[in-house]
Amino acid sequence: MSKEALDAQARQELLRIAEAWYDQMVGGVVPSISLPTRTKQNLAFDETSEVWKYGERESLRSAHSAKSALHLLKMSYVIGFLKQQLIENRSSTLREMYYISEGWKKAKFHAQDESNLLIEDLEILTMLQREAFHLRPEEDGATVFGPIRLKEMTRRGVKEIHCQEDVGEAGYAIPNNVENLEFVDHDAKFVIAIETGGMYARLQENGFDEEYGAVLVHLKGQPARSTRRVLHMIHEKFKLPITVFTDGDPWSYRIYASVAYGSIKSAHMSELLATPQAQFIGVQPSDISDYDLPSDTLSERDVLALKSELSDPRFDTEYWRYQIGRQLEIGIKSEQQAFAARGLDYVTKEYLPARLSEMGVL
Amino acid sequence: MSKEALDAQARQELLRIAEAWYDQMVGGVVPSISLPTRTKQNLAFDETSEVWKYGERESLRSAHSAKSALHLLKMSYVIGFLKQQLIENRSSTLREMYYISEGWKKAKFHAQDESNLLIEDLEILTMLQREAFHLRPEEDGATVFGPIRLKEMTRRGVKEIHCQEDVGEAGYAIPNNVENLEFVDHDAKFVIAIETGGMYARLQENGFDEEYGAVLVHLKGQPARSTRRVLHMIHEKFKLPITVFTDGDPWSYRIYASVAYGSIKSAHMSELLATPQAQFIGVQPSDISDYDLPSDTLSERDVLALKSELSDPRFDTEYWRYQIGRQLEIGIKSEQQAFAARGLDYVTKEYLPARLSEMGVL
Repeated sequence: MSKEALDAQARQELLRIAEAWYDQMVGGVVPSISLPTRTKQNLAFDETSEVWKYGERESLRSAHSAKSALHLLKMSYVIGFLKQQLIENRSSTLREMYYISEGWKKAKFHAQDESNLLIEDLEILTMLQREAFHLRPEEDGATVFGPIRLKEMTRRGVKEIHCQEDVGEAGYAIPNNVENLEFVDHDAKFVIAIETGGMYARLQENGFDEEYGAVLVHLKGQPARSTRRVLHMIHEKFKLPITVFTDGDPWSYRIYASVAYGSIKSAHMSELLATPQAQFIGVQPSDISDYDLPSDTLSERDVLALKSELSDPRFDTEYWRYQIGRQLEIGIKSEQQAFAARGLDYVTKEYLPARLSEMGVL
Repeated sequence: MSKEALDAQARQELLRIAEAWYDQMVGGVVPSISLPTRTKQNLAFDETSEVWKYGERESLRSAHSAKSALHLLKMSYVIGFLKQQLIENRSSTLREMYYISEGWKKAKFHAQDESNLLIEDLEILTMLQREAFHLRPEEDGATVFGPIRLKEMTRRGVKEIHCQEDVGEAGYAIPNNVENLEFVDHDAKFVIAIETGGMYARLQENGFDEEYGAVLVHLKGQPARSTRRVLHMIHEKFKLPITVFTDGDPWSYRIYASVAYGSIKSAHMSELLATPQAQFIGVQPSDISDYDLPSDTLSERDVLALKSELSDPRFDTEYWRYQIGRQLEIGIKSEQQAFAARGLDYVTKEYLPARLSEMGVL
């Protein structure tokens, strides 16, 4: 679809919400919207797409109550702002939109969380990504390094970039709006998404990308939507295996889960953002003892997070029940950079080749 | 100096420390090292370089006490590790070095802060940057967008990159080791270093870089050493004015101070990292009322931070005493993206041109 057609569609979908309110009022009905409940309990596995999405539970916001009426008022101001932005072909950050609401009197947002949630509501109602409304998040900065070539449609023309040959050592910086990206071709065997910058640089220094035909993607901790979308796009276009290499603690398993199954916050976008075929490399609890890695005792928060994962539908598999159970038994965790205790080459010469073979990737 | 000569120098300087201990012991003296005290109270202005460095106060660590003896033991292990790393032309992250110490028995580090501080000690003793020891920090991800061309000496050959033409919208990602960068030429009038990603994207979307010949540098909050070094290098090579645009709160003034005057933690590197000619754009406390910006009340922590700045030698100027005093009076703060309340173009069409003219940059 052309950019103009996409913009027109976004405008139409946004206005459809307001039109529905108009029709309700004309018909003598108090205007309302209905949205899925956004909690862990309302995540449901979608067999077709193999991702976790919101389930059947819905909550109704009707202008019967003053609180919900105010919510609808804010939503109509936001729709008006986004409509104008689409007409003028402008864009803005979520933060800027929060500030713009300063001029909306009663509809002014009191915290950015509130405006962010409202945008997520609009995504659910329109089934479009916020990028379609020309809204972007604050920060990004995830990077890609490896044998893959892409085209980016920028405001200054189309740039064609090879993510090994045309970039510095920090790699290609993923833009806010990855819908402007097209992956052209590659000479890779698989993608490895990496939690920490230290490990990303280690694989690059050790020439792991060249030796094994790996595309390195730096997740920068909990990955931004744009990073997850890039992994999804690469997988969809080239059918390359996607692997995820993180620290060995409950917070890192959530990083993997958000890449593979979608996140609780953006479950309405799972089909676009998640890559159910993504495989977890490690650090697995079993690796900690198998490789005798330096470790730390699990904190109380870690234990609670692991237990909470046992009730998270995304982790309801034999593999994860075993790993999480094992970690609760041994009571320790390790970071991915802990392999350095066995030498700087150990991770690329021993651990990754062995583990990736075991997983069937190499 | 060639890379080989630099590596040889680093090795020599590191071994010199161990040689001094050897000589002390041979001479019947208990080995020791002397280092400047690293506190705000021991910052002194260096008239020649116009940056803040550590002053005269020193603290002695002598192997007379078990605690200091252990410190010297750790230092000798680190020196041995770095010597080997330089010989093998390898590099590692600060985190990896912390893990490598696992094998050092009594000399094992118990937290990464401890190993990081020891590396800073070695920087002070050798008068070299940690990059000379082939040590790199974890993360980076700051970016540059604008009419400037550079060469990066990577492990895969020299890459020549124009930071507008050869990059995507996210810009050129600054690598960990910026000593491998050479700035080639430019078509710019000044550099604007920006705290938030939202404002960085705003200036780019509004074409501010093209209209005013500005090189945009995204600081990503408190800037990494590599980012400050890049600003210093651009200023040194091309004599371009460096300006800093941040939020209007005490934490952001520290961002400016670390760019302009050096940071308390790395005052031993101020001559390489600081750019005393860097000018603060804002958000100034006076801008908040002049532009009627959306604002928040100063928190208790903010007030304490402002008061602490009044006793920070880096802020001991008429300008800063006035601005900080004014902010304590009005009791509010504003973010740079708050200009969005006046429209998405306001910051590039009104505020920045007016303020940069007033500063003599435009």
